[in-house]
Amino acid sequence: MKLNPKGEIVNAKGWVRSKRGNKNVNFIALNDGSSVKNIQIVVDVAKFDVDLLKKITTGACISVNGALVASQGAGQTVEIQASDILLYGTADPDEYPLQKKGHSLEFLREIAHLRPRTNTFGAVLRIRHAMAFAIHKYFNDRGFYYLHTPIITSSDCEGAGQMFQVTTLDLENLPKNSENKTDYSQDFFGKPTRLTVSGQLEGELGATAIGQIYTFGPTFRAEDSNTPRHLAEFWMIEPEVAFYDINDNMDLAEDFLKYLIQYALDNCVDDLEFMNEKWDNTLLERLHFVLENDFVRLPYTEGIKILEEAVRKGHKFDYPVSWGVDLQSEHERFLVEQHFKRPVILTDYPKEIKAFYMKQNDDGKTVRAMDVLFPRIGEIIGGSERESDYDKLKARIEELQIPMKDMWWYLDTRRFGSAPHSGFGLGFERLLLFVTGMANIRDVIPFPRTPKTAEF
Amino acid sequence: MKLNPKGEIVNAKGWVRSKRGNKNVNFIALNDGSSVKNIQIVVDVAKFDVDLLKKITTGACISVNGALVASQGAGQTVEIQASDILLYGTADPDEYPLQKKGHSLEFLREIAHLRPRTNTFGAVLRIRHAMAFAIHKYFNDRGFYYLHTPIITSSDCEGAGQMFQVTTLDLENLPKNSENKTDYSQDFFGKPTRLTVSGQLEGELGATAIGQIYTFGPTFRAEDSNTPRHLAEFWMIEPEVAFYDINDNMDLAEDFLKYLIQYALDNCVDDLEFMNEKWDNTLLERLHFVLENDFVRLPYTEGIKILEEAVRKGHKFDYPVSWGVDLQSEHERFLVEQHFKRPVILTDYPKEIKAFYMKQNDDGKTVRAMDVLFPRIGEIIGGSERESDYDKLKARIEELQIPMKDMWWYLDTRRFGSAPHSGFGLGFERLLLFVTGMANIRDVIPFPRTPKTAEF
Repeated sequence: MKLNPKGEIVNAKGWVRSKRGNKNVNFIALNDGSSVKNIQIVVDVAKFDVDLLKKITTGACISVNGALVASQGAGQTVEIQASDILLYGTADPDEYPLQKKGHSLEFLREIAHLRPRTNTFGAVLRIRHAMAFAIHKYFNDRGFYYLHTPIITSSDCEGAGQMFQVTTLDLENLPKNSENKTDYSQDFFGKPTRLTVSGQLEGELGATAIGQIYTFGPTFRAEDSNTPRHLAEFWMIEPEVAFYDINDNMDLAEDFLKYLIQYALDNCVDDLEFMNEKWDNTLLERLHFVLENDFVRLPYTEGIKILEEAVRKGHKFDYPVSWGVDLQSEHERFLVEQHFKRPVILTDYPKEIKAFYMKQNDDGKTVRAMDVLFPRIGEIIGGSERESDYDKLKARIEELQIPMKDMWWYLDTRRFGSAPHSGFGLGFERLLLFVTGMANIRDVIPFPRTPKTAEF
Repeated sequence: MKLNPKGEIVNAKGWVRSKRGNKNVNFIALNDGSSVKNIQIVVDVAKFDVDLLKKITTGACISVNGALVASQGAGQTVEIQASDILLYGTADPDEYPLQKKGHSLEFLREIAHLRPRTNTFGAVLRIRHAMAFAIHKYFNDRGFYYLHTPIITSSDCEGAGQMFQVTTLDLENLPKNSENKTDYSQDFFGKPTRLTVSGQLEGELGATAIGQIYTFGPTFRAEDSNTPRHLAEFWMIEPEVAFYDINDNMDLAEDFLKYLIQYALDNCVDDLEFMNEKWDNTLLERLHFVLENDFVRLPYTEGIKILEEAVRKGHKFDYPVSWGVDLQSEHERFLVEQHFKRPVILTDYPKEIKAFYMKQNDDGKTVRAMDVLFPRIGEIIGGSERESDYDKLKARIEELQIPMKDMWWYLDTRRFGSAPHSGFGLGFERLLLFVTGMANIRDVIPFPRTPKTAEF
């Protein structure tokens, strides 16, 4: 709580979380959103107007002046003895949905416009802020430049998933060209445009010019996936660094994740303890688990052998595992939680299951990919050293039949002063699931966008 | 330049800006994007392969080992005497568009994928980064929380301009409902959705829950304005603070802008001096002008009187001026540059030219708006105290015939625990125009989106 000294008394402004007491004294738990901890306001009923006190119910907004004194009750060290109270806004108990009793996360999603007023979402939003700031600080302190890559793109080959179309055409009255197709010359950008699924390709333009960049912006997937792990709109962090090979990239990813978790432990202790107690009592343990262990670094091929061996010894997976398959979360978690008991970075994946831009290994079969696997959530970071050889990159693009007309500008980075470089992507909400202990990705973003849901 | 010590020698990696010299010695200006200043590489021609040196042309990417020594030439204090050179990537002089000679900004916009390799755009991007970081640091240090407001919105009454539609419907085969209208039940979100024009309304949800928030995200305007001041996609910063009145809001805006400019002067001195010399030799003077003057605070009504008086005295404006008009940039600049010779905050604008959510003054005619006016660019910040009275806000919404069905969640902030609050919006690229001295807004964002242009 922010308390403003006013002479010998302090002022506190906030929202009433609860009011209890008796006919002589009321205790108001007041919260201004800056902490999960309330300040207790002690009200000598005799000194105040009865009607005023009646209107001070859960959710009401008030300003209180009073002496800050040591508290005699349990649960707080100080409290305010109210000398005067100003009522800014009432909250009719018959209407206000956030009464003192607990609410399901499902119900709170339906009132996402009010849920930041709860302890849980206050804590999540404060942790979310702390992680966002830590990301900017980490990169700024190390000489990286924040690059704003475009949200609206005319490229349809970013290759990471289904895309939303962006248009100013009137869908009730679509203009048609001579072939009776939509006449995009009349659209805002003169051609079809979509929402970005990744800033990486433009990030590489930045890295091969100013050396070390990172993106941190919204990205979009139009996948009809109604799961606790998918959002249609989410935020991504994508560093990209000239002259980094895959090993530098792994060092960066490990150092970065540990820095973020240490930052949370250093700056969000009240909120993390609250989340640990309320939602996930292994949260703090898991944060320390990541912090205190070196990450295992292992080729995919070796990882597959371990998983196959586990199957032979009787471990049951839902999905089959053999060289060439894309690992499922259950496989990733087995390696981390049961086999190594440490975070794992898997490298050198089969080229068929990875993107066209990854550096090709000499074996002709694998690429210099690196995925960081965490307990509970599986893959948290995906990255690679990039193919810097123009001919090899172009051959791969042709092999995959990616339309070259869309890629000329990307290929120019390899035509002119090509540099070895590497980068990775971190889904911000994936990180927040890990750091807050929440189970559903809809509960770590203020206003989730999912199939059939775009409220507020 | 980042120089890595390697034994008694250093290593430098970067891109060749130029190469000159004679048959005995070559001088390579190398740049890694971390500074506008190159490092000079001195090459004793006799020690190197002729073919290698021939390939080291402007734009090529190299790694150099050599001794770092005091320079005997003018223009630098140290230089590297190359002992070995690794060529990462060539840049064919017949193909590479960024040869040593200068290029027009118009031409560079056409190759926006390569322009970050120029001194000018390197400087702009570094300043852009510094300003983004300073914004996060300013708010973080003051206990504000960074709130990610949604990019895709189903609201069409944000009220700030024309919007882009977002859809997954197939425009070549639009589903129709029984009324022969587009069947949005088949669209991704089950209804029409658009790209946000402002995060403010959701920002108010945050401020009335966790107290002090700011947004910093992309916003979109589908206006067919091909001017040096308009982008279809740009970034906005919108702080929103519970318990702030208009005066607190003005204090915040002035302190914030001065902090940012001081941060630029403290952290971007080389780049600012470069921009001052190359593009705008009043840039540094203008930055100091803002820093060293208290902003004038003046009601709109008084501002109009000053402008009318100027007209009476013979000053010519392109646009007429009288009480009730929305001020043009020429009017704003007259107040700042000629009348007060200080930045100006105009307050209490006529309600007809301002948004529905602004706090209504008792005069029935004006609202508690505050616009910050700067030299050269006019309005840089627009904000207000918000209407916190439920009935007054609802009446204004009805008066303006804004569809209430879209506003229920916003009105809930006034129904439940309403708090006085204020906020403002700063266009990030508008700020960058001011801080970099660039004249066209397309030149302060990496990949500009404007009518008929969405390349890269």
